[in-house]
Amino acid sequence: MRQLPEAQLDAGSSLSTRERIIEAARELMIEFGVLEVSVADITHRAGVNVALVSYHFGGREGLMLSIAREDAKLALSDLARLSAADRPPTEKIRHHVTGVIHAYYKRPYLNRLLQKLIREGSAEAAREVGEFFVRPVAEARSAIIAQGIASGVFRNVDSRLIGYALEGACAQIFTSAASRQAVLGDGALNSELVERYAKSTADLIVGGLLASRAGGVTGEL
Amino acid sequence: MRQLPEAQLDAGSSLSTRERIIEAARELMIEFGVLEVSVADITHRAGVNVALVSYHFGGREGLMLSIAREDAKLALSDLARLSAADRPPTEKIRHHVTGVIHAYYKRPYLNRLLQKLIREGSAEAAREVGEFFVRPVAEARSAIIAQGIASGVFRNVDSRLIGYALEGACAQIFTSAASRQAVLGDGALNSELVERYAKSTADLIVGGLLASRAGGVTGEL
Repeated sequence: MRQLPEAQLDAGSSLSTRERIIEAARELMIEFGVLEVSVADITHRAGVNVALVSYHFGGREGLMLSIAREDAKLALSDLARLSAADRPPTEKIRHHVTGVIHAYYKRPYLNRLLQKLIREGSAEAAREVGEFFVRPVAEARSAIIAQGIASGVFRNVDSRLIGYALEGACAQIFTSAASRQAVLGDGALNSELVERYAKSTADLIVGGLLASRAGGVTGEL
Repeated sequence: MRQLPEAQLDAGSSLSTRERIIEAARELMIEFGVLEVSVADITHRAGVNVALVSYHFGGREGLMLSIAREDAKLALSDLARLSAADRPPTEKIRHHVTGVIHAYYKRPYLNRLLQKLIREGSAEAAREVGEFFVRPVAEARSAIIAQGIASGVFRNVDSRLIGYALEGACAQIFTSAASRQAVLGDGALNSELVERYAKSTADLIVGGLLASRAGGVTGEL
């Protein structure tokens, strides 16, 4: 184990140490299925001195914020590519819904981490998560929906409200094993279920955005 | 304040004392915006001795389970009436989505309470919430969706997976003020926003279930 003074020496390779700590925290949150993994366990897994969490992240909340920030980068670069792509808006929304569901499957801690930081974190942490994750994702989503409205394929919706519904729809099946046990008869998550959920949810959202059924969706049917 | 021995005398009017405690707990969770209100604050508000929580509910988790159970009764009686009603399935789903969103607005603790009991409660509490709330709601929803499929109005969907998406879509806007601040520019919830969200979400779900756009929702557009 390193001793605290090496934190100074270590600053030259700080990206790698930071990344090792972030990756260890992710692994443990996934393995244990909870957010509450100890800093001691995280630094042990990363093979670094426990003091390096304070050094690189300012503490536990800072580490959790950094994990969310790294995950935000991934999500936003996917969304930027998708928004710029030359594909029909229906396909873009389908691809986005599938991508969000896969992200929650691969990173089952992510939804709860964001909720925890934004609900129970310090006011500053909540504001930061809003700024670096929630708002840019909502804006990118709105841009894609706006493309569909402009081309006449989608109804004239409030894309921010649709964005909330889309986000909640993607996340809900990941909320608990006990709920899946009660509804599906089996609490386990596997890729077969996740693929079916992605298709079911993408069909629902894309179909619900289409313009040509406007009569149907205002209740006349 | 009553003294403990009165718990025995009080048993004859136990419904009323139980209800007073449940109502006080609901009020405080709504006023403070958190689930973590103390048993002392709850019994003080209810005007009963603190020992009556143990007497009537077996403790704090038992009280929280009883609140969820009372809320489940409301939700399930609404759903049973709706399922039996002679109305088109599109209207039933619209009415249900609107009802769930209104329930979360009126009882902002409810979604988090269910999540907390089912994720972080004892195994027994998680199982109970699954049995008395999550499963019957899912089954009632599935029955309404099945009516729509049978009549040819809805696509042939997996109603349990659609139920997850519907639930998440209804709940998401209530998850945090910081998120609403980031996306909508204002964290406040008011009935005007809730009505717009109910209409937006009901349009999305109903439109997404309709049969006649099946070509559109499998990606050919």
